Amino acid sequence: MYSFKNDYSEGAHPRILNALIESNLEQTAGYGEDCYTTKAVEILKEKIKCENVDIHFISGGTQTNLIAISAFLRPHEAAIAANTGHIFVHETGAIEATGHKVISTKVNDGKLTVENIKAVLEEHTDEHMVKPKLVYISDSTEIGTIYKKVELEAISAFCRENNLILFVDGARLGSALSCEENDLELSDLARLTDAFYIGGTKNGALLGEALVICKDSLKEDFRFHIKQKGALLAKGKVLGIQFLELFKDNLYFDLASHANNMAKLLNKEIKKMGYSFLTESPSNQIFPILPNTIIKKLEEKYSFTIWSKVDNNNTVIRLVTSWATKQDAVKDFIEDLKILTK
Amino acid sequence: MYSFKNDYSEGAHPRILNALIESNLEQTAGYGEDCYTTKAVEILKEKIKCENVDIHFISGGTQTNLIAISAFLRPHEAAIAANTGHIFVHETGAIEATGHKVISTKVNDGKLTVENIKAVLEEHTDEHMVKPKLVYISDSTEIGTIYKKVELEAISAFCRENNLILFVDGARLGSALSCEENDLELSDLARLTDAFYIGGTKNGALLGEALVICKDSLKEDFRFHIKQKGALLAKGKVLGIQFLELFKDNLYFDLASHANNMAKLLNKEIKKMGYSFLTESPSNQIFPILPNTIIKKLEEKYSFTIWSKVDNNNTVIRLVTSWATKQDAVKDFIEDLKILTK
Amino acid sequence: MYSFKNDYSEGAHPRILNALIESNLEQTAGYGEDCYTTKAVEILKEKIKCENVDIHFISGGTQTNLIAISAFLRPHEAAIAANTGHIFVHETGAIEATGHKVISTKVNDGKLTVENIKAVLEEHTDEHMVKPKLVYISDSTEIGTIYKKVELEAISAFCRENNLILFVDGARLGSALSCEENDLELSDLARLTDAFYIGGTKNGALLGEALVICKDSLKEDFRFHIKQKGALLAKGKVLGIQFLELFKDNLYFDLASHANNMAKLLNKEIKKMGYSFLTESPSNQIFPILPNTIIKKLEEKYSFTIWSKVDNNNTVIRLVTSWATKQDAVKDFIEDLKILTK
Amino acid sequence: MYSFKNDYSEGAHPRILNALIESNLEQTAGYGEDCYTTKAVEILKEKIKCENVDIHFISGGTQTNLIAISAFLRPHEAAIAANTGHIFVHETGAIEATGHKVISTKVNDGKLTVENIKAVLEEHTDEHMVKPKLVYISDSTEIGTIYKKVELEAISAFCRENNLILFVDGARLGSALSCEENDLELSDLARLTDAFYIGGTKNGALLGEALVICKDSLKEDFRFHIKQKGALLAKGKVLGIQFLELFKDNLYFDLASHANNMAKLLNKEIKKMGYSFLTESPSNQIFPILPNTIIKKLEEKYSFTIWSKVDNNNTVIRLVTSWATKQDAVKDFIEDLKILTK
Repeated sequence: MYSFKNDYSEGAHPRILNALIESNLEQTAGYGEDCYTTKAVEILKEKIKCENVDIHFISGGTQTNLIAISAFLRPHEAAIAANTGHIFVHETGAIEATGHKVISTKVNDGKLTVENIKAVLEEHTDEHMVKPKLVYISDSTEIGTIYKKVELEAISAFCRENNLILFVDGARLGSALSCEENDLELSDLARLTDAFYIGGTKNGALLGEALVICKDSLKEDFRFHIKQKGALLAKGKVLGIQFLELFKDNLYFDLASHANNMAKLLNKEIKKMGYSFLTESPSNQIFPILPNTIIKKLEEKYSFTIWSKVDNNNTVIRLVTSWATKQDAVKDFIEDLKILTK
Repeated sequence: MYSFKNDYSEGAHPRILNALIESNLEQTAGYGEDCYTTKAVEILKEKIKCENVDIHFISGGTQTNLIAISAFLRPHEAAIAANTGHIFVHETGAIEATGHKVISTKVNDGKLTVENIKAVLEEHTDEHMVKPKLVYISDSTEIGTIYKKVELEAISAFCRENNLILFVDGARLGSALSCEENDLELSDLARLTDAFYIGGTKNGALLGEALVICKDSLKEDFRFHIKQKGALLAKGKVLGIQFLELFKDNLYFDLASHANNMAKLLNKEIKKMGYSFLTESPSNQIFPILPNTIIKKLEEKYSFTIWSKVDNNNTVIRLVTSWATKQDAVKDFIEDLKILTK
Repeated sequence: MYSFKNDYSEGAHPRILNALIESNLEQTAGYGEDCYTTKAVEILKEKIKCENVDIHFISGGTQTNLIAISAFLRPHEAAIAANTGHIFVHETGAIEATGHKVISTKVNDGKLTVENIKAVLEEHTDEHMVKPKLVYISDSTEIGTIYKKVELEAISAFCRENNLILFVDGARLGSALSCEENDLELSDLARLTDAFYIGGTKNGALLGEALVICKDSLKEDFRFHIKQKGALLAKGKVLGIQFLELFKDNLYFDLASHANNMAKLLNKEIKKMGYSFLTESPSNQIFPILPNTIIKKLEEKYSFTIWSKVDNNNTVIRLVTSWATKQDAVKDFIEDLKILTK
Repeated sequence: MYSFKNDYSEGAHPRILNALIESNLEQTAGYGEDCYTTKAVEILKEKIKCENVDIHFISGGTQTNLIAISAFLRPHEAAIAANTGHIFVHETGAIEATGHKVISTKVNDGKLTVENIKAVLEEHTDEHMVKPKLVYISDSTEIGTIYKKVELEAISAFCRENNLILFVDGARLGSALSCEENDLELSDLARLTDAFYIGGTKNGALLGEALVICKDSLKEDFRFHIKQKGALLAKGKVLGIQFLELFKDNLYFDLASHANNMAKLLNKEIKKMGYSFLTESPSNQIFPILPNTIIKKLEEKYSFTIWSKVDNNNTVIRLVTSWATKQDAVKDFIEDLKILTK
């Protein structure tokens, strides 16, 4: 049984484990005040091409979202998200648990537009409703699509005009930025957003996300929020060491490229067989629509997610590739599907 | 510079890293639904000698405290803690951030007694005050002392009579249970408390605490709370593998014993030199009172925590030992202190 | 300028002010433990035909909703509401501010159905999503419609089968229960729901809602929640006296009937002129669709709410009547509209 | 049975009820946007001698405290209060329920000093603890004492130097400012604090407190917070009308002076009989220490609060007077006590 279920089935890239071993018995300061974390922050600032950001390492994506959003908003302010947004759907009300409404807006491709945001602002007119204040987008999105530079620039400009905070969930930012279709760089994110995070868990780390706070007014006292939400790891260096290893050369993007390539191969071959897809995804998650009979057969050898029903005979499935996906497994899947398709 | 500052200066015990490496490329289910986590839970149940508990692995102590306490209490209910209790002092108001007051009561040795709890109940009489509902104790305490069985039994009996939840913060439970003076076992904790956690971070793990929920009514839907607070790690196996390694033989207690032995050695020798202590600590944290002039000298070669002022000339310091503390470093410290003391 | 903007433009029915005056200088216990409140509770229990309920008086609707819902739910649980539901739209995220998501579901007539609720349950499958636990409905709804007995019975049965709490926002329950089309009584609400409230503010009181808790497990410690949310009035008798006056005879329903009659008159005459309506409302809020040119003229003499745009030339307006609405004003409005319509 | 139990046993001063009646049937805007509220705000600004404040009317003291404090603080920030402070003791954890710790500091006379505040700041040093940000004081205090101008000036100066918000709970501000010993005026409060409230409930209103926000940065969007916490009354004019009546001439202070005079009479006569007091209170709450045997006898004719035990034979009781306290009742009490004392 081979899994295309997600990008966190395996552990960490071997170089990361190695880095943990090499530094293991060295005594360092706790709570992320160690030299590895410091170096990781320095190197990330170089990659982002911006000195004037604050960077914090946090163990997971939901945790990063909830700490950042609750730290950035006042009690009556709300986040705007796509109806497919992770914070709206799959975080067990983590944002609401910190007191803030997530206003969802229906989109088809996982991506928010200026028009979506504008419509929300127009509906929220007075103190009988929450005040929309933060725009949450994911790149890549929860259904595999990515933002183009022109799209992010438009959202960014609108947010600045309207005094909205722009926050990017980058759980799969590695995959997004490594797509062929992508024209964004880390430095664009720093330039265009108020905060974003660079996901490690889904791109080769054991655990860990790097939150980058760009806007000065959002930086103050941020470590208090991390601690208050239970996320200031005593052995904070565990996160710093991993990001140092991922970014001291091009490892982070190499891993993401591999994941994308594996998804692309699947995508191309499945398309060739005549199947259509839920979305045009250039990243490491693809959503082919297959006949139920074939899905049943595939499930004998592969695990993946049943995403949504199309009609009585066809279903969308989600296939996810990662830094660890084996090319042979991809080829086997394609061969098996070919045979089942005939 | 050698550090006696805390028990999380180094990484993990080498066997733990090894276990992570060995399982690294295996594909497993996410979110703690993998086989390693399942096995770790099974083995822990054996060690606890109780099948009827739920066990969850969570990345840190503050996180475990806040998830458990907020899941256990209704909005108007409060926790009772010693004024030295970690949740009262050192968690940036994490419990209050979930909506609950922490009622503190002054104690001298870090330990709550039935009398302390009773006094709190007597003061809280009606709906104009919070309702005390959960008793929080730490074993070992924040100042190194431990609970004897007779003490825990008394607190447990009182809590059951008064419909109070008894919760034990076991960030340093390994050290507590491995002290010579200790007469408690894991099975006693399961028998006497409603929930407790077994700390991994401060006893050889990279990160991770094992929360044990004993009382049936507190178990329902607990994974929702973990997720909502951002603590359901995608690669949950990282925690399971570590606890499996710590408990598949006696590693956990061996590590704690080493830490205790190192502290004991320090304790004995410092006492011999005529110094007194803030508390009689049998565990891995000791609190000698030293002259300021000597402290200044020691700081040139060792790092440790300045705890509290005694008078203009003397100060309490905290020395913490761990599974990784080197006996040679302890001996050097003793020698240096002897020389300075003359 | 005459206002049809809402049902809280005037103060209280004169009998209520009189009751406040008569009891004014009498010394009574504070915080709702006075004899008037006690009597009001007794009389309400008679009207509800159920002794086994707890009744609390709270100053406003949003306050009642947030206290009840936050007291009833555990942290990971959520409320289900129509997308027009007051808690979803017009309470500034009051429910989310207590930590709970409000799951909205699209309806056309302001009313939830079993199918709506079922669909929400089917989408919420595991601990990565909130757990739907409370069904919130309003009677009458925010757009004037009312629940029939058969509808409420179906929802109630479904909630009981699925262990969901059924809560009815009765800000305008007087109007709902006094409609000609209505076949529900207070006793039905007590029988079919877990909690509901009887609105006073919008039916002749200065302020005040009577929350009725039917389900035993929701009753415990409820006064703690009222106090914690700042709603336990020192002079609680102010609320008790008003409800005593409203319910010691049929005043409450008489006032509601007047409001309904005034709305009905408007409704009938506007329909006669050939206009259509957003909803078929039998209660004290009606939503005619009028040409923009006519609306502009009407606004010179009357105030009302511009509800929503229909097309470039027509708009839905909201007209609200109350216990205090003058029949002459209604007639004037009709006459003026007739003239404008020609 | 005559009650000296509190200052909210009766309803409202007759002039207030009269004002409610006179304005009763007039149609006005809802939610405090009516002309009475506007006028009340104008008149209060004159009394405060400051135009640059925002004033909001809120129905009760706990509600005002929790809305203001939660609106003013960011999630990691905490309030500092005397251990007798109402928010620390008697509000059912209302502040903690909004996510903020209340740091208490032990005082003997109910009053915070600069030294108390300084000590709290010195203990809170880093992100492992909450950040003390708001100083909460009550005038008069919960045990009847009042702040002198020099004391408030010192606290104010310290708060400004240390970037702390100074907030005054004025539930009994009328009594405080009307004491003979007092040298503060409303204008001093506006000058020295960042926000304070003028209590109506305990000084002749049916309900209502006037929150005055002095510091510009605390004013923004405040009505959102009132609404979110359920405190934006639909018939907001009920509060505005009362404050207009209380402040359009000297009624507010006249009522407070009467309460103080009654307390003073009790105080003087009880002292004459040789009894001592818990505190030297110049305001409308006094705390004589009486023999238990006498207390038992007094309870046959008067109700009051048993405050605290002094020794096996003597107890502190609390006697509260109000705008409605009858001089004859006071004289009767004195006479009865005299007889019992002999």
